Amino acid sequence: MATPNQAYRTLDAAGVRAYVANLAHLAERLGGTPATWQVREVSDGNLNMVFLAEGPAGGVCLKQALPHVRVDPSWKMPLDRTFFEAAYLREVFPHVPNLTTECLHFDPEQFILVVESLSGHKVLRTALMQGPVNPDIATRIGQFVARSTFATSLLAEPFEKVMNRRICFARNQTLTRITVDLILTDPYIPHPRNHWAEPELTPVVNALRANAPLRTRVDALRLHFLSNPQALLHGDLHTGSIMTTEDDTRVIDGEFATYGPIGFDAGLFIANVILSLFSSPSGQNSSLHINMINNFWQEFEKTFLTLWEAQNPPQDPATHYYSTALGPISQTHKQAFLNSILQDTIGFCGTEIVRRIIGYAHVADFSALPTPTHRAARKKAALQFATACLSPQTPIFSIQDFLDLLLKN
Amino acid sequence: MATPNQAYRTLDAAGVRAYVANLAHLAERLGGTPATWQVREVSDGNLNMVFLAEGPAGGVCLKQALPHVRVDPSWKMPLDRTFFEAAYLREVFPHVPNLTTECLHFDPEQFILVVESLSGHKVLRTALMQGPVNPDIATRIGQFVARSTFATSLLAEPFEKVMNRRICFARNQTLTRITVDLILTDPYIPHPRNHWAEPELTPVVNALRANAPLRTRVDALRLHFLSNPQALLHGDLHTGSIMTTEDDTRVIDGEFATYGPIGFDAGLFIANVILSLFSSPSGQNSSLHINMINNFWQEFEKTFLTLWEAQNPPQDPATHYYSTALGPISQTHKQAFLNSILQDTIGFCGTEIVRRIIGYAHVADFSALPTPTHRAARKKAALQFATACLSPQTPIFSIQDFLDLLLKN
Ligand SMILES: Nc1ncnc2c1ncn2[C@@H]1O[C@H](COP(=O)(O)OP(=O)(O)OP(=O)(O)O)[C@@H](O)[C@H]1O
Ligand SMILES: Nc1ncnc2c1ncn2[C@@H]1O[C@H](COP(=O)(O)OP(=O)(O)OP(=O)(O)O)[C@@H](O)[C@H]1O
Repeated sequence: MATPNQAYRTLDAAGVRAYVANLAHLAERLGGTPATWQVREVSDGNLNMVFLAEGPAGGVCLKQALPHVRVDPSWKMPLDRTFFEAAYLREVFPHVPNLTTECLHFDPEQFILVVESLSGHKVLRTALMQGPVNPDIATRIGQFVARSTFATSLLAEPFEKVMNRRICFARNQTLTRITVDLILTDPYIPHPRNHWAEPELTPVVNALRANAPLRTRVDALRLHFLSNPQALLHGDLHTGSIMTTEDDTRVIDGEFATYGPIGFDAGLFIANVILSLFSSPSGQNSSLHINMINNFWQEFEKTFLTLWEAQNPPQDPATHYYSTALGPISQTHKQAFLNSILQDTIGFCGTEIVRRIIGYAHVADFSALPTPTHRAARKKAALQFATACLSPQTPIFSIQDFLDLLLKN
Repeated sequence: MATPNQAYRTLDAAGVRAYVANLAHLAERLGGTPATWQVREVSDGNLNMVFLAEGPAGGVCLKQALPHVRVDPSWKMPLDRTFFEAAYLREVFPHVPNLTTECLHFDPEQFILVVESLSGHKVLRTALMQGPVNPDIATRIGQFVARSTFATSLLAEPFEKVMNRRICFARNQTLTRITVDLILTDPYIPHPRNHWAEPELTPVVNALRANAPLRTRVDALRLHFLSNPQALLHGDLHTGSIMTTEDDTRVIDGEFATYGPIGFDAGLFIANVILSLFSSPSGQNSSLHINMINNFWQEFEKTFLTLWEAQNPPQDPATHYYSTALGPISQTHKQAFLNSILQDTIGFCGTEIVRRIIGYAHVADFSALPTPTHRAARKKAALQFATACLSPQTPIFSIQDFLDLLLKN
């Protein structure tokens, strides 16, 4: 499954047209005749080819894995990542039907995944760079994380179901390796994949790497990421994995799906909102970003607790194997559980900020700043905030503490 | 693999003789001619058939899964448990060759596992009931737990290897279900599988079940057991799973093998030493049991830390993915890691004591006490100690604190 077979062909626009025309349920969605369809490539990520095919009645989006990283053909990579993206969508779509796209087709020979086209939507990162967005977008992402993680956790299901799903996603090792390397290891050691253009950042990077408690915290987070399969994660929930209009928000690109700590999804989302905050033109009001983080967390927490309460009392105490098994869930217990998610969130948020500034894959956000000096200053400030997130000495007991810390930086 | 197929036949003594005679490398181990071999059934556990076959040159032990619980044929059960026991031995034997038995043969059609015969050895539970044992036995079990868990953890290997092993053992769901039900759930709710002969225990059981913080702790332990695949566990490391002579100690019966928190193996062992302590004739010196627990933990901790240190610096920082990745492991970090294992150990120890007194599978130890009154009193005391282990209010920061608590009970 992992390497190209005889039948595998990389799609081009003509190939997309023929491919869709061949599948009746997709062709019907587009309407009209294949010759009238608009096909365009919209790939802008690092890894895969993405095409939109649109007809008079509607559109579809085709994503195909390449046998290498799209932006670096020398970096070979197995094709099965679209399999995991399709599997992720099949698992979570029933729980968040309005917050992601349905898997319409998956082709295990061509490694093509077809989902609804979101042609009126913008990538959230781009929207944030262009100006203010509706802060409710973050509320919807809070819903998404709460519903997708709760539903796939031991809080919702007999452990056998969870274990079978873990077995499936534990095979997504190529992309998990990328997370472990690019987010949780490389930035803290000298590694050829790291880079930054601003010489002013070098002393900050050196200080980060010389900071023993911080390195210990990152070690602990790396271990935690790999040994706490709490729920099925999206695994790459940055603002480039969210497409939105004013009133509709969809999570895309779940190819990094893996079982892990819930705070990993939450931390990546928050970190990318923070990267947007640090890169917004100086003087711009920070309240939008603060509201977004607050909305996200409040909604996540509220939804997660509501889902948990609804499990209580369990329908069948013999099949539900967590707090629901032994009677009412204590307040203390729930609070401890959510607090541990918050601690994870803050830690993973710190690592995501760091890697997006000095690691392999940077974010576009800072390019909106007018001069290299501005960019260096804001990146430095972001790294300093990340250092605080990763410092075992920073006492954060609530999202408010976290926002207070952010406002101080 | 899970249900009997056409070829499956339950072994009897004649069947064992023929089976061994058919496999040259086993027949050779016994020596002589099949007609001269001694074959006897030694099954004394709840689940499987066990036979010893001995010839002039040596012996083997055959274990076969039945399609039901051996002591309760109405409780149907898939046959694949011997597969997991064989898989466990294959994984851990290289790391603890003198502390367990080698898998000499596994038959995936008959679900027969063949290992070395330990005919001069006694089951540790029996030995403890018969009188004092060498307390170094516990030291060796400390070695066993440290080596088998370290080697299969993320501290020792690239995560891909760990994940592949997790994938294998995550299929051992029938036996994991037994652990979750019998150890971590049933005793805390009214359930037909629970039983106790002594009416004096009923108020203690009621108090245990009415104790909300304790139930919350058990809920947390159940979740923890299922969501912290730290290392490959034996999964059933009680004193009936250990065979010993004065100077040789072997762990048997790894069919419950699963990835989980290291403290689960440690906790089960310690709990069974404690059950032996509480059931030893009154007036008998408790120092043997105290020494055993202390020896076990000191050796576990020392060996685990030594193995960890030996990983540092890693041979290849790109493939080792824990503390070794970012340079020297800090003292704080190691201490925090071992302390969390201790906390898990104490919790799981508490649950094992409880389930062995009021759950489905009791231990023989208490039958050594002379009268029902004695038994009731000692079981009550053991339950009270278990309650302390499961109380979030009991502050235990070291094995010494734990032993102090034990001596007070
Ligand atoms: N369902 C969709 N409808 C419309 N456009 C989409 C859809 N899915 C993806 N796109 C567009 O294609 C781009 C690339 O998609 P995606 O992020 O899934 O690819 P990727 O190569 O896996 O990216 P990454 O390297 O970040 O993992 C998106 O940024 C978006 O512009
Ligand atoms: N390698 C061996 N050599 C000699 N005797 C053995 C050996 N393995 C097991 N036995 C004997 O067989 C008995 C049952 O073995 P074991 O505990 O593996 O079976 P089980 O049915 O799986 O038990 P349980 O119900 O506790 O899981 C042991 O108590 C011991 O007396």
